[in-house]
Amino acid sequence: MQPLVNDRYLRALLRQPVDETPVWMMRQAGRYLPEYRDVRTQAGDFMSLCRNPELACEVTLQPLRRYALDAAILFSDILTIPDAMGLGLTFGQGEGPRFARPVTCLRDVQQLPVPDPEDELRYVMDAVRTIRSALQGKVPLIGFAGSPWTLATYMVEGGSSKTFTRIKQMMVREPEILHALLAKLADSVCLYLNAQVAAGAQSLMIFDTWGGVLSTPAYRAFSLDYMARIVAGLTRESEGRPVPVTLFTKNGGQWLEAIADTGCDAIGLDWTVDLADARRRVGHRVALQGNMDPAMLYASASGIEQEVARILAEFGPGNGHVFNLGHGIAQDVDPAQPTHFVDAVHRLSRPYHR
Amino acid sequence: MQPLVNDRYLRALLRQPVDETPVWMMRQAGRYLPEYRDVRTQAGDFMSLCRNPELACEVTLQPLRRYALDAAILFSDILTIPDAMGLGLTFGQGEGPRFARPVTCLRDVQQLPVPDPEDELRYVMDAVRTIRSALQGKVPLIGFAGSPWTLATYMVEGGSSKTFTRIKQMMVREPEILHALLAKLADSVCLYLNAQVAAGAQSLMIFDTWGGVLSTPAYRAFSLDYMARIVAGLTRESEGRPVPVTLFTKNGGQWLEAIADTGCDAIGLDWTVDLADARRRVGHRVALQGNMDPAMLYASASGIEQEVARILAEFGPGNGHVFNLGHGIAQDVDPAQPTHFVDAVHRLSRPYHR
Repeated sequence: MQPLVNDRYLRALLRQPVDETPVWMMRQAGRYLPEYRDVRTQAGDFMSLCRNPELACEVTLQPLRRYALDAAILFSDILTIPDAMGLGLTFGQGEGPRFARPVTCLRDVQQLPVPDPEDELRYVMDAVRTIRSALQGKVPLIGFAGSPWTLATYMVEGGSSKTFTRIKQMMVREPEILHALLAKLADSVCLYLNAQVAAGAQSLMIFDTWGGVLSTPAYRAFSLDYMARIVAGLTRESEGRPVPVTLFTKNGGQWLEAIADTGCDAIGLDWTVDLADARRRVGHRVALQGNMDPAMLYASASGIEQEVARILAEFGPGNGHVFNLGHGIAQDVDPAQPTHFVDAVHRLSRPYHR
Repeated sequence: MQPLVNDRYLRALLRQPVDETPVWMMRQAGRYLPEYRDVRTQAGDFMSLCRNPELACEVTLQPLRRYALDAAILFSDILTIPDAMGLGLTFGQGEGPRFARPVTCLRDVQQLPVPDPEDELRYVMDAVRTIRSALQGKVPLIGFAGSPWTLATYMVEGGSSKTFTRIKQMMVREPEILHALLAKLADSVCLYLNAQVAAGAQSLMIFDTWGGVLSTPAYRAFSLDYMARIVAGLTRESEGRPVPVTLFTKNGGQWLEAIADTGCDAIGLDWTVDLADARRRVGHRVALQGNMDPAMLYASASGIEQEVARILAEFGPGNGHVFNLGHGIAQDVDPAQPTHFVDAVHRLSRPYHR
């Protein structure tokens, strides 16, 4: 493998000095890019794109050609694991994901296999290998997975939900079933992420999109504990370098101390969190990633610049900040806009790293 | 008017001693009750029920007949104000609200009237008067309104939203239009709430359902500042008693200090907030209302009891707690369940008030 040319992102996650604050965008390979939509059409449906390592590699690299991003993220979906477990995943036209066979009882959980990453999920590992090779050491490659709780919400609800009625009913009536499911998912995610590292991922991120719908004790018991279990089981070094781990719980701003306690290297923050406050609370223990409202990409160039300046000032001078959006980029953003964002982060952050 | 028999709720909001922690449930008059569904069918559509003072009174009183609740809340909707402004509100079958004429530009905002509460919204005031009289002083009556930001989201999006794309585009591109809209809404809400007090409401609550989708500075500028403006303009005494004001921002747990700064009497908390932590932060300045996850009403009687006990212990001994759910009760809850909840709050809270 070629040596890494730009390691700002990895250094910032380890709270080491950098020349400029590194930046990438959640969902940076996505529908806002016309070249992505072309490849997507070529692939057919969304999962076919995920399952094709060459096309997954192509869309992973697309945003890097347009913007001076400091990291690439594997193009895939958090639902590859439940899909590999045999729940029958489909994405309807303009709809969210659907599972043909949702999990409803203990028997369902017991029958779920723990997928072998180099077998049922080999297409993901092939994508990691293909992308890593194609990157030629330009920037590091991020591997990722969904958190057990977040995956479980889709598996129990049978798809997206607003109210999380089914999984919450399971949680309050039959918590042992949910714990069995979460334990199996934690094992599966751990194997999956370690296989991504073996295949070439240089950093890992766990997306806990729905942990924020839980009460504090339920968050700890049903989401955070399983993420902590995964963090404890991850390969933390590869190719002679640390492999930093970032945990991101959307709407988890109140639990930063507990998230830092898992032993992760960095915490992803949504845009509702005050970054100065977050740094005061946990910045001596972990790096922080975030946290511009993706809606700011609808603003003028100078509006974006002002918001970037505000967020940089909020974090202040010193190490341990990876700039990002607080959530995925919206699909109707003009592809000219991220240029203003990425360039502003690099240019305006220099004084903070002198 | 008859003297108030049970004033626990009002006393708790003012952080005065009580014998038991008062309790009510957001959306306590609602579809989970078969008797509500009967009246709703009789009324026709949802807004016809809101517009009929006798039927609105009937559904307001229904939950009080079943459960030992310490407060009644006016049956109405937060969208009465935009409806009275002429935006053409409808509720489709099984859908959310829709506005036929959403607000898109400054001209739209300038043409919006500030509704006269005793004219276009007289049906609400008549409902307040009817309910207040029917309550015969049994428990206090809560009046309410939506926050300007929350009302604006529906008015600009034309209905419910997941992404708030339109209003956020307005916020970042043409903030002056949004400020004009919010200022007009703040004036309208203030008039509306003061009219409710004049008609007999004994406490007021402002629901900021969507403030939590904003960044910290945007929350202050576009939501909290307008709620503060309303609080400053409210009638705070009536019939020789204080009229306490509660502000509730869903997903606003990070901003409690700033919310307390508005001069409100109490803060409503969703279930993601740690109550002990909230009390430490602002409990010397305001009362706290909340905060059981409504999904706990799917649990067994003993499960509900345990959760009530946990939340009571989290708040601890002393004054200033109104028990509630962290959000509205779900429509598929068995009507037998709230009995366990309400009774557990009363029974288990006694030791904390000795």
